[in-house]
Amino acid sequence: MTYCLGIMTQEGLVMASDSRTNAGFDDLNIASKMHNFSQPGERAFVVLNSGSLSLSQSVINLVKARFGAGEGLARVNSMYEAARELGECVRHVAELDRAALERDNYTFNLHLLLGGQVRGEQPALYMIYPQGNAICATEESPFLQLGEYKYGRPLLDRGVVFNSTSLMVAAKYALLSFDATMRSNSAIGPPIELLLYRKNSLILDCYRKFNHGDAELQAIHSRWEQSLRRAVEDLPDLRFADAPLEESAQSLLI
Amino acid sequence: MTYCLGIMTQEGLVMASDSRTNAGFDDLNIASKMHNFSQPGERAFVVLNSGSLSLSQSVINLVKARFGAGEGLARVNSMYEAARELGECVRHVAELDRAALERDNYTFNLHLLLGGQVRGEQPALYMIYPQGNAICATEESPFLQLGEYKYGRPLLDRGVVFNSTSLMVAAKYALLSFDATMRSNSAIGPPIELLLYRKNSLILDCYRKFNHGDAELQAIHSRWEQSLRRAVEDLPDLRFADAPLEESAQSLLI
Repeated sequence: MTYCLGIMTQEGLVMASDSRTNAGFDDLNIASKMHNFSQPGERAFVVLNSGSLSLSQSVINLVKARFGAGEGLARVNSMYEAARELGECVRHVAELDRAALERDNYTFNLHLLLGGQVRGEQPALYMIYPQGNAICATEESPFLQLGEYKYGRPLLDRGVVFNSTSLMVAAKYALLSFDATMRSNSAIGPPIELLLYRKNSLILDCYRKFNHGDAELQAIHSRWEQSLRRAVEDLPDLRFADAPLEESAQSLLI
Repeated sequence: MTYCLGIMTQEGLVMASDSRTNAGFDDLNIASKMHNFSQPGERAFVVLNSGSLSLSQSVINLVKARFGAGEGLARVNSMYEAARELGECVRHVAELDRAALERDNYTFNLHLLLGGQVRGEQPALYMIYPQGNAICATEESPFLQLGEYKYGRPLLDRGVVFNSTSLMVAAKYALLSFDATMRSNSAIGPPIELLLYRKNSLILDCYRKFNHGDAELQAIHSRWEQSLRRAVEDLPDLRFADAPLEESAQSLLI
């Protein structure tokens, strides 16, 4: 499994990914799912991947080769064009591999998240589908997820607001979302990579990798659990009809 | 969709269910998924259902008919026997309907949660599968869920402990778990039915139905969101390598 998350705020972007890959429960490996492409001062892109490792590697290799040759992401004029460029790379790999996979009943399974900014344009966050088309995050829906998204979503739904959530607070939400997901699904695993992109900086210099047993992550995990438990206990007691729990007398329900 | 939840604590059981049924997005209805069977002072059972409404109704009808005739749940000597009785009813309905459903490519889709107690025995919580077999909750895994379980699980994983969580606090966790699930999946909906069973009471008298717009539920929702946001903001800021976010100078990643 995979969990990748991008959050868009007024101050910039948070991009985060786990690093567990698996081909069945008995074949676990570690591979980074975060890839960075930048020309400081001009353009900065972060790409996260989920789905088939083989397909992801092929697409990233292609994106990298084109970027290195001064094509593709090195030349796009907007985030929309950047998302289109990634979609083209996905379609190119589909031409190479899709038929062979489907012949053996494998799905062409590959999703990407793209976050970043081109100078003179606004930062943006996109999800690219296996078909090569894309959607972007909006102020009303300011985060996008890949893979095992459900466990880590309620917290984001409650807390992340485009206009008012600071970049640092969004990073905490991202980390807590990963913490919740890893707790419930053991196929999501460290290292967790976390990158903050501050709007108009046009540079990727704010990065952190949380390895297994990272002391800061464990401290946050413990403190968070304590806070949650206290918050639940501090809620007012629920009222149950006119028969308080202690004074149960007769059946109201048959 | 459906969300049903049972929590087992040292003080007793919490049983909760939503009431939304749907046959596609354009065919939504309301149906209670909580069914109660008790002989006060002797035995008390709560059954929650997910899956096909038709199959659930057939099984509950059968359980009810047998209970009314002094058979089945009216005679079992333990919660294990009660779970077996429900499994037998599921298998009986499978004999009636399974072949006809599968002929048209429908799955025989029906899960039950059973909570309760028989006098002289401990309370217990079971999940009954479509095949009629069952598993029970344990002190290490003190809750069981049916249906859309992922959104509402992280909070339970963090907070519910068999030995130390009181019945009232467990009820708050249940309600918050439903609140998270309803927020992320619109196919889970009110009324939410919540029943607390206090160990050795052998009576079902502590019940509450939360309708759409329930003022207490809305107050808990708002207060919970405020507490969560404050807890996230109070976490210590994350450290990012040696380059603080404000002082970004050059790219560490290409």
